[in-house]
Amino acid sequence: MPENSMEKPNIVTCTAPVNIAVIKYWGKRNEELILPINSSLSVTLHQDQLKTTTSVATSRSFQEDRIWLNGKEEDISHPRLQSCLREIRRLARKRRNNVDPGLDSTGLSHKVHICSVNNFPTAAGLASSAAGFACLVYTLARVFGVEGELSVIARQGSGSACRSMYGGFVQWIMGQQSGGKDSLAQQVEPETHWPELRILVLVASAERKHVGSTSGMQTSVQTSCLLKHRAESVVPGRMEEMNEAVRRRDFTAFAELTMKDSNQFHATCLDTYPPIFYLNSVSHQVIHLVHRYNQHYGETRVAYTFDAGPNAVIFTLQQHVPEFFQAVQHFFPPESNGGQFVKGLPVKHATLSEELKQAIGLEPMPKGIRYVISTKAGPGPCVVEDDTQHLLGSDGLPKNKV
Amino acid sequence: MPENSMEKPNIVTCTAPVNIAVIKYWGKRNEELILPINSSLSVTLHQDQLKTTTSVATSRSFQEDRIWLNGKEEDISHPRLQSCLREIRRLARKRRNNVDPGLDSTGLSHKVHICSVNNFPTAAGLASSAAGFACLVYTLARVFGVEGELSVIARQGSGSACRSMYGGFVQWIMGQQSGGKDSLAQQVEPETHWPELRILVLVASAERKHVGSTSGMQTSVQTSCLLKHRAESVVPGRMEEMNEAVRRRDFTAFAELTMKDSNQFHATCLDTYPPIFYLNSVSHQVIHLVHRYNQHYGETRVAYTFDAGPNAVIFTLQQHVPEFFQAVQHFFPPESNGGQFVKGLPVKHATLSEELKQAIGLEPMPKGIRYVISTKAGPGPCVVEDDTQHLLGSDGLPKNKV
Repeated sequence: MPENSMEKPNIVTCTAPVNIAVIKYWGKRNEELILPINSSLSVTLHQDQLKTTTSVATSRSFQEDRIWLNGKEEDISHPRLQSCLREIRRLARKRRNNVDPGLDSTGLSHKVHICSVNNFPTAAGLASSAAGFACLVYTLARVFGVEGELSVIARQGSGSACRSMYGGFVQWIMGQQSGGKDSLAQQVEPETHWPELRILVLVASAERKHVGSTSGMQTSVQTSCLLKHRAESVVPGRMEEMNEAVRRRDFTAFAELTMKDSNQFHATCLDTYPPIFYLNSVSHQVIHLVHRYNQHYGETRVAYTFDAGPNAVIFTLQQHVPEFFQAVQHFFPPESNGGQFVKGLPVKHATLSEELKQAIGLEPMPKGIRYVISTKAGPGPCVVEDDTQHLLGSDGLPKNKV
Repeated sequence: MPENSMEKPNIVTCTAPVNIAVIKYWGKRNEELILPINSSLSVTLHQDQLKTTTSVATSRSFQEDRIWLNGKEEDISHPRLQSCLREIRRLARKRRNNVDPGLDSTGLSHKVHICSVNNFPTAAGLASSAAGFACLVYTLARVFGVEGELSVIARQGSGSACRSMYGGFVQWIMGQQSGGKDSLAQQVEPETHWPELRILVLVASAERKHVGSTSGMQTSVQTSCLLKHRAESVVPGRMEEMNEAVRRRDFTAFAELTMKDSNQFHATCLDTYPPIFYLNSVSHQVIHLVHRYNQHYGETRVAYTFDAGPNAVIFTLQQHVPEFFQAVQHFFPPESNGGQFVKGLPVKHATLSEELKQAIGLEPMPKGIRYVISTKAGPGPCVVEDDTQHLLGSDGLPKNKV
């Protein structure tokens, strides 16, 4: 086939969300299949604020599988990418053989071009790999007409990606089988279940290089006896409690368990040898701020959770957002007190009482937090119907190259 | 009796050491008797650098029990002081009744004046209560002629004080009895056992107010499920290992277990709700420095341990002190590079290779450490025979009042 008679590619574009765990995943029992040592539970964040968009193109003319991430071509041979591609193609083949043998309408033999971008900076420290692999698997499944439990495939790209396959409140059941077929995500409640719940991502400044989560959890599994105990004896009960708190929309129970589980996860990191520190002085100050804020009101109005980095994710109810945000701004005075300190859902103005400031009584930490993303729970992956939104052009190459 | 015919008091003066735990004590099963939820093991620090001196005077003329700490009169009615006084007097009475009824040569009915000073600033963040109560109990016992297992009494003043009743390497056996008679300290090895062992106390700057250990451990016992697991299932094995490491003078085993146990103690603080943070950014930097230093040499030459505060206590062998001290001075540049950065045992000069600096590769943290106390393992409490050293005068009052 001459080079210029390229067959127009078939392109599908989808988006997928970020999720934040409230019962943490830390540690694998099988590295290759990404099978965890405990179940976990997360809230899917709204894609209006944080999402990955992925276009997948197939064409008879493509010579090889290729991938571009945030405008830069990357190595498609990465084992976890290959796992996802292989699994999707295997299921597509299976389906074709069972349903409609002989037909290759889905371009099963074609190579793919993949292009993926995030609408948030990597510096936000949010686990972009979860949204990224969820989006990849969801889009590939659309391209190849694969249906069924896709979270099992997304899991093999990045463990927490399986939870980004659903909106709202999602649990990743650890499963028992050695092959991992029962290690999958389930929606606990949809995003519409708890409309008052609000989420603030506090992006910390001055992030140091830290231990990546893949190698970090390996070391933890090998060296921390507290992690083993947590996974075996603590998390099962907490999963039940958290399911129940979400179902009942019991903010106090949800918030306290969220904080305790974040702290316990970081405790197991500290029990790792050599120890791993993800929390820095800004994180410590956020933790103190939240506890003193709650203590002042004699009720749990705000909760924090931290993943493998110093950024806090705050849960609260709609009515408390304005005041708590002001408290954050007061104790972490931004560079210039401009409106750009908050992104996403608008936050109403509130004034802090002197009483509250004194009750919190922390030394303000200028520029400790760069900005705040204001968001809420949101839906799972979606297909983008508007063809103009494809990230790949009719030549099968990214429209915006870096 | 007229005021000016005061009877000359009987005065005894003793000194007692600070100790630093390498298997940590955190959590009581009985608050009043100070019975711990796990055994612990410590190294007694040398009194040439760190000690408490206590004089106890008795006189028929004293109207009431009184106490002066570091020059200031304090309330003698403090329950833990009362526990120690009551126990010593009870044993003295028992002894008198058994041995020599009718005789009151020891002034058992007399009131006491107690005066106690530390030769190190409270700001050093070292648990002065351990040395203080050990010294109090040891001195009172001399005054009242009490013998036998005094660590059981010191324990009731401050848990870790029982370990300051012996020199060298000391274990506090948690015991089983509800009355606490078997919860006592035992010397594992004397201070002469491991002459090459050296200790550096790195006194961190900018100490924030933190949660005191008494209330901290209460909250931990009530809320941390990891602490419960540690006490029941982790510490018993570690006590055996540490005993063995000390007995064999196996620095690698001693150092690694010391670091792991310090980290696990701080992990349980983080698992406490609300969480407790004793480690700050200076502590984190010390931890990184130690691990990278060891990694550079491919062997464990240095260990850290942290109590309920940010100050690091470093264990190493004599031959590594000069270089490691230089590394501390390099990565924590002091205010002025004067000799006063190190106190105590002299530290020889060494030069740091560029290779080592690069291998450690940390951003220097100016003034992060105020000074370093260079010391080693030392003996237990001692009687001061020189009468001129008494802290109380013949009037029964402190010689140096503030």
